[in-house]
Amino acid sequence: MGTLIVELGDRSYPIHIGQGLLEQAGVYFARHGMSRKSPHLIISDGNTAPLYLNRLTDSLAHSGYKVLSFIVQPGEKSKSLSVYEEVITAAIEGGLDRSSSIVALGGGVVGDLAGFAAASYMRGIRFIQIPTTILAHDSSVGGKVGINHPLAKNMIGAFHQPELVLYDVNTLLTLPPREVSAGLAEMLKHGLIWDADFARWCQEHADSLLALEPEVLEYGLEKGCAIKAKVVSQDERENGLRAILNLGHTIGHAIEAIAGYGTFLHGEAISIGMVGSAMLGVRLGADPSLVEETRSLLQSLRLPVALPRELDTDTLMGAMMHDKKFKEGSITFVVPLSIGQVEIRKDIPASLVREVVEQLKEEE
Amino acid sequence: MGTLIVELGDRSYPIHIGQGLLEQAGVYFARHGMSRKSPHLIISDGNTAPLYLNRLTDSLAHSGYKVLSFIVQPGEKSKSLSVYEEVITAAIEGGLDRSSSIVALGGGVVGDLAGFAAASYMRGIRFIQIPTTILAHDSSVGGKVGINHPLAKNMIGAFHQPELVLYDVNTLLTLPPREVSAGLAEMLKHGLIWDADFARWCQEHADSLLALEPEVLEYGLEKGCAIKAKVVSQDERENGLRAILNLGHTIGHAIEAIAGYGTFLHGEAISIGMVGSAMLGVRLGADPSLVEETRSLLQSLRLPVALPRELDTDTLMGAMMHDKKFKEGSITFVVPLSIGQVEIRKDIPASLVREVVEQLKEEE
Ligand SMILES: NC(=O)c1ccc[n+]([C@@H]2O[C@H](COP(=O)([O-])OP(=O)(O)OC[C@H]3O[C@@H](n4cnc5c(N)ncnc54)[C@H](O)[C@@H]3O)[C@@H](O)[C@H]2O)c1
Ligand SMILES: NC(=O)c1ccc[n+]([C@@H]2O[C@H](COP(=O)([O-])OP(=O)(O)OC[C@H]3O[C@@H](n4cnc5c(N)ncnc54)[C@H](O)[C@@H]3O)[C@@H](O)[C@H]2O)c1
Ligand SMILES: [Zn+2]
Ligand SMILES: [Zn+2]
Repeated sequence: MGTLIVELGDRSYPIHIGQGLLEQAGVYFARHGMSRKSPHLIISDGNTAPLYLNRLTDSLAHSGYKVLSFIVQPGEKSKSLSVYEEVITAAIEGGLDRSSSIVALGGGVVGDLAGFAAASYMRGIRFIQIPTTILAHDSSVGGKVGINHPLAKNMIGAFHQPELVLYDVNTLLTLPPREVSAGLAEMLKHGLIWDADFARWCQEHADSLLALEPEVLEYGLEKGCAIKAKVVSQDERENGLRAILNLGHTIGHAIEAIAGYGTFLHGEAISIGMVGSAMLGVRLGADPSLVEETRSLLQSLRLPVALPRELDTDTLMGAMMHDKKFKEGSITFVVPLSIGQVEIRKDIPASLVREVVEQLKEEE
Repeated sequence: MGTLIVELGDRSYPIHIGQGLLEQAGVYFARHGMSRKSPHLIISDGNTAPLYLNRLTDSLAHSGYKVLSFIVQPGEKSKSLSVYEEVITAAIEGGLDRSSSIVALGGGVVGDLAGFAAASYMRGIRFIQIPTTILAHDSSVGGKVGINHPLAKNMIGAFHQPELVLYDVNTLLTLPPREVSAGLAEMLKHGLIWDADFARWCQEHADSLLALEPEVLEYGLEKGCAIKAKVVSQDERENGLRAILNLGHTIGHAIEAIAGYGTFLHGEAISIGMVGSAMLGVRLGADPSLVEETRSLLQSLRLPVALPRELDTDTLMGAMMHDKKFKEGSITFVVPLSIGQVEIRKDIPASLVREVVEQLKEEE
């Protein structure tokens, strides 16, 4: 078992990673001084709750905590204002007060939704994350929480750091294989932006990671979280450095938006986006081997590396222009220089991106 | 003209108070480095917009700013999730980005709504307040923003400090007399909790305040803001001291809730609540003259000081128990010791409050 501290001054918090943490949730609640007088509200989804909710509530009740739960439908659609309102209603009806917490038991969807509810209920109460997907190692660091607007993803939200994160790798064993790979895409991303050795470690241990071997997973998740934590500690409110975490995301978000949400998982879309970023990097001076290397790393994790030919380039370019990273007229891209090293460029001409999109289609 | 700095470290901001500031908004925008590339969205309501929106947009446009506006219906009903969603939609459709701001032109309703939109749009963009009511001197300090849930007021929100506040006392001249008095209730409250001299100044200048004489208003608003700023600077997130600002609000909120929102203005309800608090204070040892003194101060501002006899005591008590200040089982009250001095008590028995409610009805 490992513990990582995300250093953010008086908003610092620990991420505990290990096996069997779900059953010890009550002990961790007590250690963190959670209130036994006030109720705590667990948000989970229809896939995760049947598997893990009872174990969590049993552990909390055993330690003397009052626990309520609210189950949302699985999937991105639950990151909506209407489901958010249902969560707030459940919080009010359950009598949550300023000493209560909202607990996310699930993947990034539940984490983002529950986190925004915690950020805004009574202007902010405590938030506890119990991630059950690999991808959620990403969302458990950084404090970004939020929901979608029909016109754009993640448009409504806040920065709200959790009180603690309990990452029980045993819960990952039930993840569908596509979700496993998609989650590993973000893990590898942390290597690609910061640490070439870690990127290569991901490739060497690809089979163990895909097989969800606990010790290997623990190491990978801890390392992924640690890299993200280092970046976030230096730039909590995303004014500069933090943007490097968006490697592959400009193209990735556009793919998600136009392919219809759900066609590609987020991790799959950014996998293709990271290949595109490598292509852009080469066009801007990186060694041509970068594209092949990036592709090979991603493929070892069984991730897609090319765009379906039928995706319309103009539509994709249009979607990119509407992305949040389009700031004051110029498009921002995270461009790799080599494996483990990236730079933020705010001056990427659309024509160059268009070439990359075309190249991404050729490779299919 | 006066300028007051609300000291909150790197979230410090100025409140400019004076005549004719609306016409200089563009100059202030420029001085604060607001982006000329990104659009800014003004939120106003159906009463305020016809009076002042053109002057504001003209000034901003004249200084080279791109400005959009969105008008909501006047009244507390606009502090809802559905109107909030409309504001966010307007922000997205208007192309607001991270360098944009949301500007509140109006009273506390527009301020709270626009402020929460600014706090949560793209996880927080800049927020500018242009208050047009006296009551909004209260909401322009402290960073509390938010909306209502059908089950409870101000249940959804954030702490989000404005970038700057432009308080043009000329805009107050069109306020209906009841709104003037209600706003002065919060001004006097700042005297009652902190500064006996200021409380007495309010009484001495009551006629000038009610007549909206600019110089007297400027002084009163600045002093009121300054007291609140001092309290908030010491306790930004409401962990302790800040609770003294709730003088009269436990009873006041209950009155608002059960009399039907709108029957009493917020300032009127807390006026009655402050008399009740004085009665409680006397029961807990303050000099008996405190009640009469408090009543006289409030009456000089033409505020109500008694409860309508037909209000049901049980219903009122029930509403108080559902208030946010009901924390972990015991009810919190701000209890005056004398004019200008209060203490926070967490142990007030319901029976004592009930006696006070009965007494408040007798005085009618
Ligand atoms: N806040 C952040 O910093 C951040 C970072 C990255 C992604 N995100 C957000 O995270 C979301 C994606 O996260 P995700 O991939 O975890 O999605 P998710 O929460 O939808 O989970 C993916 C699927 O796996 C199911 N599932 C979850 N845990 C399971 C388990 N242990 N066993 C079986 N099935 C399980 C879910 O029900 C869902 O169907 C997106 O909304 C994205 O915007 C946020
Ligand atoms: N955020 C905070 O710290 C804080 C503090 C106190 C109150 N509040 C909130 O503020 C709200 C009450 O504020 P309010 O009293 O300003 O209410 P308001 O915004 O509803 O304004 C009162 C009325 O006056 C009208 N009006 C506003 N300016 C006018 C003008 N210059 N001329 C003519 N009419 C004008 C409005 O249209 C409205 O009908 C409540 O929702 C309360 O919760 C917030
Ligand atoms: Zn991502
Ligand atoms: Zn008030």
